[in-house]
Amino acid sequence: MMKMEVAPPKVLKQPLVIPQRVLMGPGPSNVHPRVLHAMSHNVLGHMNQETFQIMDEIKEGIRYLFQTKNDLTLATSATGHSGMEAILCNLIEPGDKVLVAVNGLWGTRAADMAERYGGVVTEMTVKLGKNFTFDVIESFLSKVRPKLLFIVQGETSTGVFQPIEGLGKICHRYDCLLAVDLVATVGGVPFFMDKWEVDAAYTAVQKILSVPTGLAIMSFSPKAQKVIFDRKIPPKVFFWDMRILGQQWKCYDKPRIYHHTVSSSLLSALRESLAMLAEEGLENVIKRHEICYERLAKGLQDLGLKFFVEEEKDRLITVTSLIVRDEFDHKEFLDFCMKKYSLEIGTGLLGQTGGGKLLRVGLMGYNATLETVEFTLKVMKEAKDHAETKSSSKL
Amino acid sequence: MMKMEVAPPKVLKQPLVIPQRVLMGPGPSNVHPRVLHAMSHNVLGHMNQETFQIMDEIKEGIRYLFQTKNDLTLATSATGHSGMEAILCNLIEPGDKVLVAVNGLWGTRAADMAERYGGVVTEMTVKLGKNFTFDVIESFLSKVRPKLLFIVQGETSTGVFQPIEGLGKICHRYDCLLAVDLVATVGGVPFFMDKWEVDAAYTAVQKILSVPTGLAIMSFSPKAQKVIFDRKIPPKVFFWDMRILGQQWKCYDKPRIYHHTVSSSLLSALRESLAMLAEEGLENVIKRHEICYERLAKGLQDLGLKFFVEEEKDRLITVTSLIVRDEFDHKEFLDFCMKKYSLEIGTGLLGQTGGGKLLRVGLMGYNATLETVEFTLKVMKEAKDHAETKSSSKL
Repeated sequence: MMKMEVAPPKVLKQPLVIPQRVLMGPGPSNVHPRVLHAMSHNVLGHMNQETFQIMDEIKEGIRYLFQTKNDLTLATSATGHSGMEAILCNLIEPGDKVLVAVNGLWGTRAADMAERYGGVVTEMTVKLGKNFTFDVIESFLSKVRPKLLFIVQGETSTGVFQPIEGLGKICHRYDCLLAVDLVATVGGVPFFMDKWEVDAAYTAVQKILSVPTGLAIMSFSPKAQKVIFDRKIPPKVFFWDMRILGQQWKCYDKPRIYHHTVSSSLLSALRESLAMLAEEGLENVIKRHEICYERLAKGLQDLGLKFFVEEEKDRLITVTSLIVRDEFDHKEFLDFCMKKYSLEIGTGLLGQTGGGKLLRVGLMGYNATLETVEFTLKVMKEAKDHAETKSSSKL
Repeated sequence: MMKMEVAPPKVLKQPLVIPQRVLMGPGPSNVHPRVLHAMSHNVLGHMNQETFQIMDEIKEGIRYLFQTKNDLTLATSATGHSGMEAILCNLIEPGDKVLVAVNGLWGTRAADMAERYGGVVTEMTVKLGKNFTFDVIESFLSKVRPKLLFIVQGETSTGVFQPIEGLGKICHRYDCLLAVDLVATVGGVPFFMDKWEVDAAYTAVQKILSVPTGLAIMSFSPKAQKVIFDRKIPPKVFFWDMRILGQQWKCYDKPRIYHHTVSSSLLSALRESLAMLAEEGLENVIKRHEICYERLAKGLQDLGLKFFVEEEKDRLITVTSLIVRDEFDHKEFLDFCMKKYSLEIGTGLLGQTGGGKLLRVGLMGYNATLETVEFTLKVMKEAKDHAETKSSSKL
C-alpha cells in the first residue's frame, strides 16, 4: 500500500453543521425552498440536451428581468464579481479611455479592474452617500471622451441609489458605451435595458434573485457586441471571452461549442428563480420591494436610527445604510442580532464615513416580505436597547 | 402600474424536469447523496464564522488530497478552467517565457491562456495519444530556459497519462517552475505535490471529487508564492489575484479580508466530498479506481473495442479513450446508451485522430464502483451490437 505524506485532517471527521440564518445584510439573501430543491437533483452533463434547454430558458429569463431583446445575454460560471470583470475585460482594449463613477467600493473595484485590462481610467468621484447628477457626468464625458462609462445603480457599500434612465442617450451623444452594475438593484427597482439604451449590464444571483452565489448574469447591446467582435486583440481572459462563451450559450447564429463545463445544479437553481419571477410578474416583485421598504424605513425612523444617505430620493431601497456614531456600541448591536436571533445585519465595508460606523439592512428577493421586515425591526429594537445599556454601563 | 416592454417568457411556466443519468463520460460524474444534501441547507453569509470554518476545513482537505503542506491552498469560485487560468495569470508576467506541453485540448487551451497574459509561449508537442518523456522535456528546458512549464497529468481529450514523479527536480535544475493540471487525475491516481516538487497544481471538483462544478481547487509551493508576491505588475485579473484571494482564505499570516462573495452552498458540498475522502482514505480511493479500471479495461477488450492510446502504460485509468473507425456507427452507439439506459459515454473533443472517432469512458469518484462498471460494460455491449446491426443494414 502507498505511503501517504500528509494524514487525513481530523477537522473533516466532524459533521457539517449549518445553522439557520435570516440574512438581512447586503447579500446573500435567503434562498427559496424551490430553488434549493432544484439543486438537489442529480447532475447533468454540460453537453446534454436538457442542460441546453435550461440555458435557453435562462436567457429568456434574463431578457425579461433586464427588459431587453439583446442576443448576447448569458451567465458566467463564477460569482457576481465576474460580471463586472467580464464586461470590462471584453469592452476594454489597452489604451482605451474609461470613465468610472466612484462613490463607494464598487466603483473603486471597477476602476482597479479597468486598469488591469489596460484602460486609461478617469475616476469621477462624489462625496460618499451622494450620487452623480447627469450634468456632472456630461461634463466628464465631454472632457474625457471615454469609450466606456461604468456606473453602479445601487452602491451597496453606502446605500446610494443612482438614477440611470436618460443616461444612455447622453453617453451615446458622446459616442460612449454605458455599462451599469445592477448587482443590488434589478428586480427590486425598475430597470429597462433597451429603453434606457444601456450597453452592458450584469447582476449577481445571490441578492434579489435569491440563488446561492456562483453565477453572474449579463447582457450586451448590439453596439457593445460589435465592439467585442471588432477588437484588435483577444480579451485577456479566456474564461470571460464573450466571442466563445456566447457561442456556447448559442447567442449567435452559429452551432453551440464547448467553452467550459457549466453547472447544471446552479443553472437549475437560477432557472427556478427566474421562473418564480415570471410567475409573480416583474412589476409585482418590484412593488413588493417598495411596500416592504416603506414599512422598513418607517420602522427604522421610529427606532431613532440615522440614515447615512441624507436625501430621501438618493436612498437605495434594497440596501439601507444607517450611521452609528456614539449612540451605542455598533458591535454589541450586531452580535446581539446574530447570537440571540441568528439575524444577519450588515456592517460597513468602508472606513471613510467620517467617524461613524455603518449598519446595512438588506431587503432582497425571498426576504422582501412584511413578515421578515417586522421580525427584523423587532430584533433591531431589542438590539438597540441592549447596546445602549451596554454603552451607558461603560460610562 | 409600470409598463413592461418584455413579457414573462412562456418557457419558464413549464416545470423543471431533470432526468436521472449515469455520467460515465470524462466528467462531470454523478454526485454522492451526502454532497447533494450539503447543498440543500440554507445559505450562510460569506463573512459568517461558520463559512470561515468550512473554508479552513477545505484547505486541510485539499492539502491532504494534494499531499502538500503549502500555505497558499484554496478554491476559486468558478469552474475548473479557472484553476488553469488562475495559475497562469498569477505566475506569468508579460514577456515571461512559458513552455507548454501540448498533446491534446488542455495543453492547447493553456498555451492560448498563457499568450493572453503576455507569456512568450513555446509549445512542446507530441503525437496525439502519446505522452512526453523526461528526456524530451529536459531538452526543451535547456533550450528554451522558461520561467514556467505547464503540463497535464491526465489529458482527458485523448486519455493519455503523463508521469510527473521526478519532473519537479528536473525543472528546478533549470530554475523553472512546474505547474500541473490534475483535473482528471488527483484522487484517482497517485500525486504527491511536495515530494514531487510541484510548484502549482489545480483540479476541478466535478470529476473525481464528484461535486457539482463551480469551484476549482489549487495550491502553490512557497517558491511559486514568492514569484506571485515579487511580481512587477498586478495579475491582469482581480478575481484570480492570489495576493488578495489568499488573504480571504487566510493563507497568509494576516487578517481575513473581503475579496468576493464565496458560496457557502458549493463550499459545503466540497467540504463533504473531502470529508468522505478523509474517511475512506486517499490510498483506498486510489486503489478503488485501480480495481475498477482493471475490470473496465478487461471488459472493453473482451468487447473487441480498440484503445486509442497504444501503450498500456500511457493509458489514463480515469478516462479511457476508444477509437471507432468503420466497425460501427459511433453516433448510433452513443444515442443507444443515452436513450435506452440514460448512460452518458463521452465522445471525442478532437478532430485529429486520424480518421476515427473517439468514445471516452470516465471512471471517477462516486462512479468508480464495480456495480457501475458492470452496468456500463453491459450497456456498451448492447449498444455495440445495436450499432453494428445498423451499420451493416446500411451496406
